Amino acid sequence: MADYSIGVDLGGTNLRAAAVSRDGRILDKIAADTDVAGGRTAVIGDIVNSINALRDRRKGDWLAGVGIGVPGFILLEKGFVVGSNNLPFFEDFPLRDEIERLLGTTVFLENDANAAALGEKWMGAGKDVNDLVLLTLGTGVGGGIISGGRVLHGFLGMAGEMGHLTVVPNGNPCGCGNVGCLEKHASATAVETMAKLMSIGDNLTSLDVYNLAVEGNERARKVFECMGSALGIAVAMLVNIFNFPLYLLSGGALPAWDFFAPAMIAEVEKRSYSYRHTKTRIERATLGNQAGLFGAAYLPLLTQWRIQD
Amino acid sequence: MADYSIGVDLGGTNLRAAAVSRDGRILDKIAADTDVAGGRTAVIGDIVNSINALRDRRKGDWLAGVGIGVPGFILLEKGFVVGSNNLPFFEDFPLRDEIERLLGTTVFLENDANAAALGEKWMGAGKDVNDLVLLTLGTGVGGGIISGGRVLHGFLGMAGEMGHLTVVPNGNPCGCGNVGCLEKHASATAVETMAKLMSIGDNLTSLDVYNLAVEGNERARKVFECMGSALGIAVAMLVNIFNFPLYLLSGGALPAWDFFAPAMIAEVEKRSYSYRHTKTRIERATLGNQAGLFGAAYLPLLTQWRIQD
Repeated sequence: MADYSIGVDLGGTNLRAAAVSRDGRILDKIAADTDVAGGRTAVIGDIVNSINALRDRRKGDWLAGVGIGVPGFILLEKGFVVGSNNLPFFEDFPLRDEIERLLGTTVFLENDANAAALGEKWMGAGKDVNDLVLLTLGTGVGGGIISGGRVLHGFLGMAGEMGHLTVVPNGNPCGCGNVGCLEKHASATAVETMAKLMSIGDNLTSLDVYNLAVEGNERARKVFECMGSALGIAVAMLVNIFNFPLYLLSGGALPAWDFFAPAMIAEVEKRSYSYRHTKTRIERATLGNQAGLFGAAYLPLLTQWRIQD
Repeated sequence: MADYSIGVDLGGTNLRAAAVSRDGRILDKIAADTDVAGGRTAVIGDIVNSINALRDRRKGDWLAGVGIGVPGFILLEKGFVVGSNNLPFFEDFPLRDEIERLLGTTVFLENDANAAALGEKWMGAGKDVNDLVLLTLGTGVGGGIISGGRVLHGFLGMAGEMGHLTVVPNGNPCGCGNVGCLEKHASATAVETMAKLMSIGDNLTSLDVYNLAVEGNERARKVFECMGSALGIAVAMLVNIFNFPLYLLSGGALPAWDFFAPAMIAEVEKRSYSYRHTKTRIERATLGNQAGLFGAAYLPLLTQWRIQD
């Protein structure tokens, strides 16, 4: 009898679930759209159906538990999701307990960026370390911190808000109330804003700007250089704070690595004594959009091991 | 038979040692000058003599071990101190093993700011939490991170370099190679530099500037306001990264709290969503210059408890 775990990556658009073996092989997968319009009951129904479908196909195997990565802050003790812009109907709702009740198995919730960081630690670029920081570069910038092999949560599950580190004290305004947040200077949105400010074009997507950079457009390249500098200020601070061996970047911006990474590394070199004097690695994450799925699936396994310690 | 531990706080000027009971009472104390001119052998001799003196006075009691707080980075596995400007003769020297050999008891080394953070967690302002960040405001700015009740070290013992967080991307140059480091905008040295820039006076010490602020001097007050803003940018980032319940400030600048804290808190309010939405505490440390002594004494006890877990 093989044992396995199920990981769910719940986004505002897609719902993906996978059965994963204890040694990190994906055994089976399901993907669906997230029925946001259907509201809470519809989305929970889809989660439960996906999990049950995976389960039915592995009759006789033992399910260690289910992990679900969700955008938003997780109140770990209560099993609530709060502050999720994409899934507002989960606010003030006992999501974990409800899914546990419907499935009859142990369920763990985790913030999606934290789950991605954990996934990279388990089966990705962070396999050989116990401590790492992951920055996810998408529409915004998210982050996850793995310390001693586990997610660092903080007292209310709000740790790892790296997108809101101040990198330009009087920089671009941010919806969070601050100005100069990393994600206003180093996200897809920031790239689009900078392209406009540089008069490269009016309604360019970040992909358009990337393509222009590939074609050799100097202004487009400058945009990614600015993004890299902003990232470098933040990464240097993380290096100075944590002295972890590994800092990973993931997300949609990764193909532009060659355009933003040199400026990023130059900034880290300048701003971190410990980076210059140690073998600190700053690298691309390797699991792509599967990182969250791996991390979610790892949650029940990790907890089991803790109980057995 | 009571058991106790000995903590040593080794600074560039003073050497202090205390016998501390398992429940955190100081049983006995010794202080001496650090004989830096005498070099390594003299300083090690003084450390060993202080510890032996405390030990001789507690015959019959059981010594759990010795903890020593030292300025500089600690290579934990090797038991080396590196990069200590005040005690350069310890570079590339097996300090821990040598003192263990001379004493015949277990010795733990810890960075002085980390020891202070641990002391505050054990017997000071952080007694009721397991996670906190301490910033020490002195000639420079140091820091220590306590996560899950223990010092967060990073892979080479260099974590907690909060004095070198970039708070002004193009700010004052720092000896570390960066510009705009926190400690160039929020230390005693920074206060003195700002007083000069504000034409308050030429050779004012930070204490002079403080006294002028007390007397109502507006420019002197502005200096502390600037210091508070710089601190606030850094503290906001720490709140966003860690979501810990408690952030402590200690050191020689603490009497000026009323002059710098309002600007600091205003900056944190602005720059941290999680500060505004949670009960995060930003407070004064309470153990003063005894924090490091407590933290050092706690090291052997903490490790024992871990072994017994």
